Amino acid sequence: MSASTAPHLVAAVSESRQWDRLMQMAELGAITGADGSPGVNRACLTPLDREARRLLIRWATDLGLTVSVDELGNLFLRHEGTEPNEAPILTGSHMDTQPNGGRFDGIWGVIAGLEAVQAIREAGVQTRRSIEIVAWTNEEGGRFAPGCMGSMAYAHFKPADTWDAVADPEGVTFRQALDEHRSAEADLPQRPLGGKPHAYVEAHIEQGPRLEAEGFDIGVVTGIQGSRWFIVELRGETAHAGTAPLSLRKDAVQDMIRAVTALNALMTDPTDVLRFTVGRIEVQPNTSNSVADLVRFTIDFRHPDKELLITNGDAIENTIATAIKTCAVTVTERFHALPVEFDALVTDAVEDAATAQGLKTLRLPSGAFHDAQFMVPLCPTGMIFVPCRKGISHNPAEYSEPGQLAAGARVLAATLAKLANA
Amino acid sequence: MSASTAPHLVAAVSESRQWDRLMQMAELGAITGADGSPGVNRACLTPLDREARRLLIRWATDLGLTVSVDELGNLFLRHEGTEPNEAPILTGSHMDTQPNGGRFDGIWGVIAGLEAVQAIREAGVQTRRSIEIVAWTNEEGGRFAPGCMGSMAYAHFKPADTWDAVADPEGVTFRQALDEHRSAEADLPQRPLGGKPHAYVEAHIEQGPRLEAEGFDIGVVTGIQGSRWFIVELRGETAHAGTAPLSLRKDAVQDMIRAVTALNALMTDPTDVLRFTVGRIEVQPNTSNSVADLVRFTIDFRHPDKELLITNGDAIENTIATAIKTCAVTVTERFHALPVEFDALVTDAVEDAATAQGLKTLRLPSGAFHDAQFMVPLCPTGMIFVPCRKGISHNPAEYSEPGQLAAGARVLAATLAKLANA
Repeated sequence: MSASTAPHLVAAVSESRQWDRLMQMAELGAITGADGSPGVNRACLTPLDREARRLLIRWATDLGLTVSVDELGNLFLRHEGTEPNEAPILTGSHMDTQPNGGRFDGIWGVIAGLEAVQAIREAGVQTRRSIEIVAWTNEEGGRFAPGCMGSMAYAHFKPADTWDAVADPEGVTFRQALDEHRSAEADLPQRPLGGKPHAYVEAHIEQGPRLEAEGFDIGVVTGIQGSRWFIVELRGETAHAGTAPLSLRKDAVQDMIRAVTALNALMTDPTDVLRFTVGRIEVQPNTSNSVADLVRFTIDFRHPDKELLITNGDAIENTIATAIKTCAVTVTERFHALPVEFDALVTDAVEDAATAQGLKTLRLPSGAFHDAQFMVPLCPTGMIFVPCRKGISHNPAEYSEPGQLAAGARVLAATLAKLANA
Repeated sequence: MSASTAPHLVAAVSESRQWDRLMQMAELGAITGADGSPGVNRACLTPLDREARRLLIRWATDLGLTVSVDELGNLFLRHEGTEPNEAPILTGSHMDTQPNGGRFDGIWGVIAGLEAVQAIREAGVQTRRSIEIVAWTNEEGGRFAPGCMGSMAYAHFKPADTWDAVADPEGVTFRQALDEHRSAEADLPQRPLGGKPHAYVEAHIEQGPRLEAEGFDIGVVTGIQGSRWFIVELRGETAHAGTAPLSLRKDAVQDMIRAVTALNALMTDPTDVLRFTVGRIEVQPNTSNSVADLVRFTIDFRHPDKELLITNGDAIENTIATAIKTCAVTVTERFHALPVEFDALVTDAVEDAATAQGLKTLRLPSGAFHDAQFMVPLCPTGMIFVPCRKGISHNPAEYSEPGQLAAGARVLAATLAKLANA
């Protein structure tokens, strides 16, 4: 048995400490779901986000970790290895939530990283490489779209100023919010953007139904399906709902109905693997007795097959243009990520650690989008999934049991220790 | 020639004074349309609305009219007749606009009333009955739906507290806004809600294309088509756009698409007389990567034929319930007004006045909804239409020429004088 799976390390992971920290975090932005479930609404770069970060920093500094932030607001908590000049192992996730979000998506990956490092330190496990826990800025994209800005900038997938002009629904730009945020965190040590970790491991709830339904404890994530995100803008002409003859209207709502109906036909998939979502619709002037002159709607399209992702995604614009009758249309692709595969260095380490702890593992791809996606070109990357009830996520009803989360943290601790000493 | 059509009265109407007042009013809430046209966004019960009302009051008191307001905020400017105990002639319209509105809809009817009364006074025309100019509260319904609250309450069509809980998009209730408004106007003399006028005449731009296209100066409005307004609420379940299989979703956006497609089929009308509009759509949580768990949309359905209005309107709920697949639905009818016919006392007076002035008249029903609708059960009622460019309204591109508006004010002046002395 290697040092990384030594019983004293696994035993040092505290189920109750990790759960208590999650519940403390869940108070920052607490909301109540339609079914009475306790959820969280904590948008990135808000005072609530900063409060959550300060709480995390307090726990990390109490533990002796060192804190730094980069120009995108990504937050790093470093456990020093015995060979601090070696490339570190990076682990973490994000702390922002969807507007009607849950208590586990993202934040558990950060808290689990802290729990794993605390266990490593308290168990007296020496690590050759340093371990850094990261909280990426704006993974969700709920306030500023698209998500994963922090990890994309870190990986130099896009320049750091790419999203400066992106505005939230109140008209605040990402640049304004980031400047305000950085000035509120000016006391924290700065670090350059980017890096070259030795490996990246992200722990996350599955956000899908498979582990629970099939009776597995740990998901060994093999990769992430591809995503293409679009904004469609239909420009018609407003008119009086009582007088304008329907034959003369340029009604943007009606063209939106035609466009989505045609897209539904394009995206039909009897195997139910394809994911197609129109989740956001904005109408102007949005009054009951005026014909709409503008509709903007989003398309979120995902598939694990690269060819299908390209073919169907490329057909979207023409499908809409053919379907609509009266409006001018612009289709903007605001995000495009091909499917990625994770590295055996990490997936094997996760699987070995779980197996050594007697946990049942399933290899599966991630249906959801994660910061890990952007680490793949940088370093060997992988993810650890734990089950979540009914696969529900992005909702206050999102739930994983304390024991399921503790098992995930134990696998993460063993994986980090192994990778840091390999 | 009667006193009411005497040349000295018609000549006392000032085209430039009326136009100047309209342009002064248009500065209060001035916006610029997509095509560069100057429009107005002046929602009811806002500081801008109050500024417009104070400007009107200043003009009215300079002219010697007396001011009063009722508990709904309806504003009255009274020209005293020689027999002040006789039921007055009421004229006017509204001062609020659509969010992306024009410079003429509503406000011209109020300014035209002032211009007509000023002409009557300056020409020295005696009127037996008093004439009251009214500015009704919240005709548009753009901030608080439905519209015509002021006239509905005046006519006791609904109790005055009916809309207390109706909230604007910012969550301010009508009652809160009205209380704030009344306290800001506490210095104005109060009058009881309601009344029994001898007749009601409302001047308005046509908001449709017929007068301009067919070359008429004045529309003698014969009545108003019926309206039924609904709010449809679809409740599904939110889920992660990347993981939730489409077959398991309860996607409120997709059920909205099904519902509107089925309604389009129900409302198909080859004669193009029927008006069916989905103008407002609200989605929750309204983020691109979450399946929507709630969609609310409005239906504005109008038709001049009472039977068709009842039959198709009553079929809406079942049409939606049959079309949707996964959500729970509630359909609420928030407004129902049968078609109304105006009284020959007023329509004949308008037609006679226009003909006597050498103007070309067309008898036509109103496609749009007006406060006049609610005066019909109270007293003989009618409306005067003037042409507007291309029939465009509820848009900054809305336009009527100064001369067209002056012709309308001259016909109104002669009509009021005739009715007040009949």
